Amino acid sequence: MSGSIFGKQFQISTWGESHGKGIGVTVDGCPAGLAISEEIVQQYLNRRKPGSNPYATPRKESDTIHILSGVFEGKTTGTSICMLVNNETQRSSDYSEIASYYRPGHADYTFDAKYGFRDYRGGGRSSGRETLGRVAAGAIAMELLKQLNITVTAYSKSIGPIAINYDNASFDHILQSPLYMPDLEASSKAEAYLKEQMHNFDSTGGVIECIVSGMPAGIGEPVFEKLDANLAKAIMSIGAVKGFEIGDGFDVATKKGSENNDAFAYDENGTITKQTNHSGGILGGLSDGSDIILRAAIKPTPSIFQTQHTVNKSGENIDINIKGRHDPIIVPRAVVVVESMVALTLVDMLFANMSSRMDKLKTFYER
Amino acid sequence: MSGSIFGKQFQISTWGESHGKGIGVTVDGCPAGLAISEEIVQQYLNRRKPGSNPYATPRKESDTIHILSGVFEGKTTGTSICMLVNNETQRSSDYSEIASYYRPGHADYTFDAKYGFRDYRGGGRSSGRETLGRVAAGAIAMELLKQLNITVTAYSKSIGPIAINYDNASFDHILQSPLYMPDLEASSKAEAYLKEQMHNFDSTGGVIECIVSGMPAGIGEPVFEKLDANLAKAIMSIGAVKGFEIGDGFDVATKKGSENNDAFAYDENGTITKQTNHSGGILGGLSDGSDIILRAAIKPTPSIFQTQHTVNKSGENIDINIKGRHDPIIVPRAVVVVESMVALTLVDMLFANMSSRMDKLKTFYER
Amino acid sequence: MSGSIFGKQFQISTWGESHGKGIGVTVDGCPAGLAISEEIVQQYLNRRKPGSNPYATPRKESDTIHILSGVFEGKTTGTSICMLVNNETQRSSDYSEIASYYRPGHADYTFDAKYGFRDYRGGGRSSGRETLGRVAAGAIAMELLKQLNITVTAYSKSIGPIAINYDNASFDHILQSPLYMPDLEASSKAEAYLKEQMHNFDSTGGVIECIVSGMPAGIGEPVFEKLDANLAKAIMSIGAVKGFEIGDGFDVATKKGSENNDAFAYDENGTITKQTNHSGGILGGLSDGSDIILRAAIKPTPSIFQTQHTVNKSGENIDINIKGRHDPIIVPRAVVVVESMVALTLVDMLFANMSSRMDKLKTFYER
Amino acid sequence: MSGSIFGKQFQISTWGESHGKGIGVTVDGCPAGLAISEEIVQQYLNRRKPGSNPYATPRKESDTIHILSGVFEGKTTGTSICMLVNNETQRSSDYSEIASYYRPGHADYTFDAKYGFRDYRGGGRSSGRETLGRVAAGAIAMELLKQLNITVTAYSKSIGPIAINYDNASFDHILQSPLYMPDLEASSKAEAYLKEQMHNFDSTGGVIECIVSGMPAGIGEPVFEKLDANLAKAIMSIGAVKGFEIGDGFDVATKKGSENNDAFAYDENGTITKQTNHSGGILGGLSDGSDIILRAAIKPTPSIFQTQHTVNKSGENIDINIKGRHDPIIVPRAVVVVESMVALTLVDMLFANMSSRMDKLKTFYER
Repeated sequence: MSGSIFGKQFQISTWGESHGKGIGVTVDGCPAGLAISEEIVQQYLNRRKPGSNPYATPRKESDTIHILSGVFEGKTTGTSICMLVNNETQRSSDYSEIASYYRPGHADYTFDAKYGFRDYRGGGRSSGRETLGRVAAGAIAMELLKQLNITVTAYSKSIGPIAINYDNASFDHILQSPLYMPDLEASSKAEAYLKEQMHNFDSTGGVIECIVSGMPAGIGEPVFEKLDANLAKAIMSIGAVKGFEIGDGFDVATKKGSENNDAFAYDENGTITKQTNHSGGILGGLSDGSDIILRAAIKPTPSIFQTQHTVNKSGENIDINIKGRHDPIIVPRAVVVVESMVALTLVDMLFANMSSRMDKLKTFYER
Repeated sequence: MSGSIFGKQFQISTWGESHGKGIGVTVDGCPAGLAISEEIVQQYLNRRKPGSNPYATPRKESDTIHILSGVFEGKTTGTSICMLVNNETQRSSDYSEIASYYRPGHADYTFDAKYGFRDYRGGGRSSGRETLGRVAAGAIAMELLKQLNITVTAYSKSIGPIAINYDNASFDHILQSPLYMPDLEASSKAEAYLKEQMHNFDSTGGVIECIVSGMPAGIGEPVFEKLDANLAKAIMSIGAVKGFEIGDGFDVATKKGSENNDAFAYDENGTITKQTNHSGGILGGLSDGSDIILRAAIKPTPSIFQTQHTVNKSGENIDINIKGRHDPIIVPRAVVVVESMVALTLVDMLFANMSSRMDKLKTFYER
Repeated sequence: MSGSIFGKQFQISTWGESHGKGIGVTVDGCPAGLAISEEIVQQYLNRRKPGSNPYATPRKESDTIHILSGVFEGKTTGTSICMLVNNETQRSSDYSEIASYYRPGHADYTFDAKYGFRDYRGGGRSSGRETLGRVAAGAIAMELLKQLNITVTAYSKSIGPIAINYDNASFDHILQSPLYMPDLEASSKAEAYLKEQMHNFDSTGGVIECIVSGMPAGIGEPVFEKLDANLAKAIMSIGAVKGFEIGDGFDVATKKGSENNDAFAYDENGTITKQTNHSGGILGGLSDGSDIILRAAIKPTPSIFQTQHTVNKSGENIDINIKGRHDPIIVPRAVVVVESMVALTLVDMLFANMSSRMDKLKTFYER
Repeated sequence: MSGSIFGKQFQISTWGESHGKGIGVTVDGCPAGLAISEEIVQQYLNRRKPGSNPYATPRKESDTIHILSGVFEGKTTGTSICMLVNNETQRSSDYSEIASYYRPGHADYTFDAKYGFRDYRGGGRSSGRETLGRVAAGAIAMELLKQLNITVTAYSKSIGPIAINYDNASFDHILQSPLYMPDLEASSKAEAYLKEQMHNFDSTGGVIECIVSGMPAGIGEPVFEKLDANLAKAIMSIGAVKGFEIGDGFDVATKKGSENNDAFAYDENGTITKQTNHSGGILGGLSDGSDIILRAAIKPTPSIFQTQHTVNKSGENIDINIKGRHDPIIVPRAVVVVESMVALTLVDMLFANMSSRMDKLKTFYER
């Protein structure tokens, strides 16, 4: 069945393999009149580009985006927007060996189990390179949200055992850190930790946190299309994510109701606010007007340069040593992917909400 | 927009408010020929019935299921199956007060923000009573999975600070524990802890864990309809869930690749197996043939019998004391809901997988 | 796969068999604040009730609607609305015979081919009684459209060879005709024709026409979700419909471009209008502001009281005489079903259109 | 809202404007293991290529297809297949004039009404060139159906007043006729008729008929996802189609039940067959094992070289003469588009049917 389409009204359709001719996405359902250009989208893509920091794979790809449709005279036309990145590295010679066995922690085995065979070159469709399409589409969603004064900011909350200290953290620091950590001291420590892992031919995981500000209250659709349920799906659909939290997340399990409830209060402008935000901006599956806070747990890169036990397709248990060079960590390059998936989800749910009230519907269609 | 429909091929559509005329669900897309009766479905519903243990609300409801369509001579016909539970308690007098203010931790405010007003009686559509429809539909999914030798078992892993010890745990104990804990010693401790919370007019949270056995490898659809992504949405759509994990979950963030990768090996039957299961049965978004392991973090019941600060609709900051009696914990009654949502997701993805290979498609339609 | 759900944002889910416990529908995605009551919905249902005229089956059913959820204090709440009609006639004894053979023109054979067996009582799920759910849901859509000053009016355009004369026709006459013909003279002739068919133990077909007024221009989504494409699906999903036309329909095939193009002109208010309406109110799949005109061809009732050749399940060619009494024509009772399916489609596409422009999106979410 | 995605499990997503950078489609949900190449797809595309006959626009486009993903070593991999045709003619100078006014019979006005502005070059997204994506995707669906021994054949049934005579018709003649008519005598007459229209600066319409052979019985999903309902949507989504029929279509309206019912009979192999096929291969929305027969009414090309009345965007009623050269008829080039849309629909519904029976589901997943 189709699985490369995301969203219900603001829908994206992605395609492309690691070592095929290219990677791309079609965004369908974008409103007409949004200013979009290749330059704008490129800025988002550059944040996940390989070779952008010492901890990322040195694969040489310019990842240049081409917009092929749906934009006319600098604005979206309302019709489907196709965006394409050509793969510059298509050599598949390096990958002939991995055709015959299953790398631990990768999708090699499960793809074969499902499809009978696979494009084994560089992970094929299950490569992290697939996220290019998500980020290009996410760029459009991010630009759309800006117009509604909604911001989405993701960053590395922890790398292995090194976590940020919120007292030292600032959104302004995120882009200054090669690891996209908002606490530059933690970032330095994490760099040291990463170098150690690289030296040991090992890799590490981490946690990405994302904050959404400016979201109006009431967005999300009871009972299955809750905002947090859709965010969870969006985030868990990113390769290597093994956990998802909203607000206090797993900490709520040991909390008491008296600790976990957020009291409401009117602020000086007569706006309803919450005095704490344990809920992470969502109550009953709908946004509550506070910042939405979510986290994703990212597993360590499965490609490591140690001998590993596995099986081959000839029925043998074997030992392997994976060649090539790979990122010792997925987290930093996934930060913009998390932002993208959150933005795509928010746009879709903002659209879904537009038909929730008769009075607003009448105003919309009043003539 | 519609939000009460779940699934893509095996679709359920639920409806009903806490104090309306009834609660129900329509299951659409169930294969013909599955043995289903009201007795079978009732057994699942009884596990979430109010008043079933001392820690559950004593509201008197028989929760008797009526199958109105789609079953003929004891078997499903392939057409939509409507199931209905009449609400026996429809008095709304107790709830007149909560019409005017917003209870902390509940969806009162967000529903008003979205819809302009709400059915305030007992939480209306955001009541936990909504899950009746999920469990009735889940019963059908569970019966279907049994036919494929797939089992889904959920239980309380922890209640507040009391967690099970796996050395003492057994699936056989789950139904013996009023809290659905597989470790009866932990269950006793948790009961004591709960009584303490009740005495303090407080509530507590917990963690539900769910194990799926017998799932074939290769189920899930790259890249957005991953099995874990859909499980995450299913689980996060349950009210009060604030976190979701697959396999090692948030623990992977501090792990190294050499620790987290699961080595493959052929077993004595020549079947590919994994020597560990950090992945929780899912690789690249597809089932890998191992047990699927997932967890949900459940927040403490927001209705507590302490004075709380909030706002009313007249623009005032007020103090409230919620009347009535409520569960001090959501976890035990949510166990069967988690099982149901997992089963619904698995069935939908098993159907989705059927068109993944030309050879199997040809065999299916061979004449 | 599920097939009993219609719509994308305003979604309905129907269920029920001819001789099961009941028939019903859940409407999901209706905006909050629409005035709805059982009385309002009942008026629509009464137009398709059996026994309402001499040419309709005399089966005794009150078809009383019960609203079970989603309406509070006389208004929709925004959550799913379940509506139920109990079947009063559930005797299945009359139908034991038809379990063993396949009636020509009915779905008996195709249901068995698909599902392996069927609920054979009165056609089961393929009975015309299934349309009750469509009409109950359609009632809500019709009431919603009224709030937007959009009207949907269907009528019998022809019964067998007897067609209306537009010069004699008026919407005011429709409900005065037992056949829902807007030309009362044609209606009388059609009544005589029908009596002749009944005398001959035969049945006849006809054409239903539907006019939508007040639809704003620009509704519909290029390129697959065109308004006319969705209307076609909606109408063709009604049992017994074998053809669909928009505007001049099949007549365009022999027309020249110079005849078929509709010239645009500004009217006295500066509004863009068309000087003719060959397009039937739709250009490029989007509404063009003119009346939408569509037609459905309805086949003659397949149940006739003549000997017919068919097969039984034991492998024999046999002759059958179907018992009971049946309508000699489907058309009049299908008129309100056509109206319903058109209304459901229009509402869904009006919702879909709300996110088509950035400027309107910004206005909607402006704070 | 998104409207460029078609299908539910076998989903296609198209994009591209007449004079943008290119046109394309992504096919998502194609089973792994189907032999596909650019050569195969190109053959289908060549049938709708401009300049292929004297009655088609002489626009010079090679319409060369590029497959960018989803095919590895000559076979589909199960992941999304992106196909791209670069536009060679992108000059927009010819079209500056039509930016300011609305051509009768075109979507210019309705696009502006919906989106506020439009890509006016050559019709933009509403250009017939959009169908390239449909045909490329349809090629894959056609190849898949071949593997299941299902054939789809469309042809011109009539051009203006000239209709084929079935006694003279043969599928073998279709590709010999520049108008894709299976009756070469009618084809010659139609050519003469078309030349006359061109001489008169006019255009004409016609009817396309399509026959599906080899479809198993029972395909389609009651009650809204009927096979004929989905075919209707598929066909009506093609620009310029104004009517749709299954089997006897609008003729049923004047038929009697005794004439219209198809008697069942066992053939010599013990297979259930129908002795006539008024139903057009579909009963109760499910395929009945006979040939599926459908028709589409195509309007005359709206672009004609006569003075026409219309409005401009400055509020004036004006007379226009459209420049350039255009097809005097749409029908022949739409034949392969009809085939494509039928094939796409059949594949989707064949997939949907796979989960209709428990016994088949168990066999599928038996281990």
